[in-house]
Amino acid sequence: MTQISDIHQLSATEALAAMRDGMLSSHDLVSACLARIIERDGDVKAWLALNPDALAEAARLDALPAEKRGRLHGLPIGVKDVFDTADLPTTHNSPLYQGFRPAADAAVVDLLRAEGAIVLGKTDTTEFAAAGRDAATGNPHDLTRTSGGSSAGSAAAVADFHVPLALATQTGGSTMRPGSFCGVYAMKPSFGRVSREGVKIYALSFDTVGWYGRSVADLALMAGVLGLDEPLEPEASATEQLRIASTSGPYRDKLAPESLEALSLAAERLVAAGHQVTRLELPEDFKVLDAHHRVILHREGQAAFRNLAARHGKNLHDDFHHRVENRDGSSLADLARAYDAMALSRIAFDQIAAGFDVVIAPSAPGFAPVGRRPGDPVFNASWTMLGVPCINIPVSLERDSLPIGVTLIARRFADSHLLAHAERIAPILKSHGKLQA
Amino acid sequence: MTQISDIHQLSATEALAAMRDGMLSSHDLVSACLARIIERDGDVKAWLALNPDALAEAARLDALPAEKRGRLHGLPIGVKDVFDTADLPTTHNSPLYQGFRPAADAAVVDLLRAEGAIVLGKTDTTEFAAAGRDAATGNPHDLTRTSGGSSAGSAAAVADFHVPLALATQTGGSTMRPGSFCGVYAMKPSFGRVSREGVKIYALSFDTVGWYGRSVADLALMAGVLGLDEPLEPEASATEQLRIASTSGPYRDKLAPESLEALSLAAERLVAAGHQVTRLELPEDFKVLDAHHRVILHREGQAAFRNLAARHGKNLHDDFHHRVENRDGSSLADLARAYDAMALSRIAFDQIAAGFDVVIAPSAPGFAPVGRRPGDPVFNASWTMLGVPCINIPVSLERDSLPIGVTLIARRFADSHLLAHAERIAPILKSHGKLQA
Repeated sequence: MTQISDIHQLSATEALAAMRDGMLSSHDLVSACLARIIERDGDVKAWLALNPDALAEAARLDALPAEKRGRLHGLPIGVKDVFDTADLPTTHNSPLYQGFRPAADAAVVDLLRAEGAIVLGKTDTTEFAAAGRDAATGNPHDLTRTSGGSSAGSAAAVADFHVPLALATQTGGSTMRPGSFCGVYAMKPSFGRVSREGVKIYALSFDTVGWYGRSVADLALMAGVLGLDEPLEPEASATEQLRIASTSGPYRDKLAPESLEALSLAAERLVAAGHQVTRLELPEDFKVLDAHHRVILHREGQAAFRNLAARHGKNLHDDFHHRVENRDGSSLADLARAYDAMALSRIAFDQIAAGFDVVIAPSAPGFAPVGRRPGDPVFNASWTMLGVPCINIPVSLERDSLPIGVTLIARRFADSHLLAHAERIAPILKSHGKLQA
Repeated sequence: MTQISDIHQLSATEALAAMRDGMLSSHDLVSACLARIIERDGDVKAWLALNPDALAEAARLDALPAEKRGRLHGLPIGVKDVFDTADLPTTHNSPLYQGFRPAADAAVVDLLRAEGAIVLGKTDTTEFAAAGRDAATGNPHDLTRTSGGSSAGSAAAVADFHVPLALATQTGGSTMRPGSFCGVYAMKPSFGRVSREGVKIYALSFDTVGWYGRSVADLALMAGVLGLDEPLEPEASATEQLRIASTSGPYRDKLAPESLEALSLAAERLVAAGHQVTRLELPEDFKVLDAHHRVILHREGQAAFRNLAARHGKNLHDDFHHRVENRDGSSLADLARAYDAMALSRIAFDQIAAGFDVVIAPSAPGFAPVGRRPGDPVFNASWTMLGVPCINIPVSLERDSLPIGVTLIARRFADSHLLAHAERIAPILKSHGKLQA
């Protein structure tokens, strides 16, 4: 049907446009993605399960008249294996859940399917998106390296052109960091705006549904379907010159040269493109956010894994017994202090961020490390804790290199504004030191 | 096996002691509860489904040697039908989920079963513990009246001696208010300390697993199994005289005479028993908590019901379309303000509550109203929002009357202290104006 070459490389918005114009069928798109997976996944190991009905589903969708087609009509997506799916196993990459088959789709999966998306399969993850067993996924840019955690498979699947869009989650840095390591666009929306029903719980205060795409437009497409296209300030009009704050955060000593380079190149290019970039020093109390994050994370994990510890004993990875037994030894008073610090920092950061269109910060300490460990979430956990929307944008260094990204951040619920700004910023950061036309 | 009469009237701790002493078998206990249900539930309508394997499960548990018995060995419990159960339908009292059978138990159900509890069945609830369809359950004390909502069936089942313990949830007043209407002990623990995995989500910031029992000891039994026996202040020693604050909250004009009477009788009896009772005026900003609660509730409900609205159209009750379409018309800036007010009030209330052992407030506007509507949560929603532990204690008026309760409250994570104080306070509030011995 189609004359398009390299179908598997189309972004989601490109593929949808081609289908809308009758240039591409869903069946061809799904076929191309499956062919790519068959070619590559023996090495990349992004997938834990593939949907045997995907092609039949594509054919069914191809037969629908235009007026019955959803906003994600015929689009194959990857789903991190911590989201329940009724027609595919949901293993959480845990030995305890091998072959487990939920009775219903997670709310987000249900919504995407209602809009015509095809779940192409389930992607590998750090066990329960938390700890325990690492994902087996390799980084498509260098298979000896990690694609990051916990959303390893989803990030690698999008980066390696297996699928144009994929669902992730973030509790510490599980969406942003693999996005940086794999060189894909990633979004973690404001906390609380997307249902987590049917998604494995780790930490109630942090777990957030996120996603990967190969363009900002693809991130915005998903955001729209999930209801995140509502503006925080309906009357706000975009200014020509963006007011951007750049911060390395309180953990600058943990940044490898390539992350410092990405951050400073980003600032240089944005200034060269006519935007205003200010250096932002975060308040002193933000230094302890990471420690508070850990207290809440492990205490909420204590509640989350208590039943598995009771049921499975030694068959449950010791990392989860660590949480249930509170081996960190935090007190409930520590927990209350951590929650209060989180609450006050959310208010404080919103006030800071209101003075800018976008805050830019590192997405990861550096390039993807060798091995399969997920990497350090220290540059992501504080933003997760603040509940703010975050978008990872790849930055091209001035030489060939592994991927590296920066995180664009806005105040809570400014998701749609952040997407609009990211759309303008993304090409500037990929411009190899040359000015945008 | 047993010589105990009225087995179905035993509290959970009494039944467990009798089983431990070999005076009672689980099979006899379950049989007695089932007989009571058969006798009464045609009128009360507490149950949506009964477990056909309960007696077989009891027999299996009876055969276990003492060292293999869990902390809830052989105890039948009721489970609100918003908790997933793998062996029983989980309908959420929604026409859309009739016959729905999840693949796994909710985390709490799994944990209770791991401790030897027997799920006797699923209890009726307001649809999705939220809105839409009312529970059919009648109040056991007057069948023309509501047993409250949303945890209607669980409260009625405990009140009417169908089962000694039952799981509930609270998002507004869904555990406390039915407890008051039905005259049973009820607990809503501190927010975030008990897993909600496998429990239908309405509002991420409020949904809390709660439970009913026929004594404070029964509430403490469940709290212990759920890990809530950890003290906030390990060094705190109980004083002879409790420092108690009494407040009608900012909505005093909504209190019927019987609730005012319960509150003032409680204070009188506590003073007569030697405790110190102070009148507490809450800060001015607490008056708007209820309005903020509604903004967060409906906005989080927007995320929670979005997929059902997309899937089911007119077959989904209009109440849920109301949330998804944001018919209240709140803005995202309103939502941010509501979250910030919640955060600051949590900190402020903890500071106030730290000056007392217990705060006492109304559990409901008055007696259970006639009909099946769930009742007004105005006296519960603010406490839910503050994330503080709450216990409903029945208060005997100085005449025969329908049940009425007061809520005991402590600062966040003081659950175990609150239970200890409630144990002392409960008999005083039931003392019909007479001093405790």
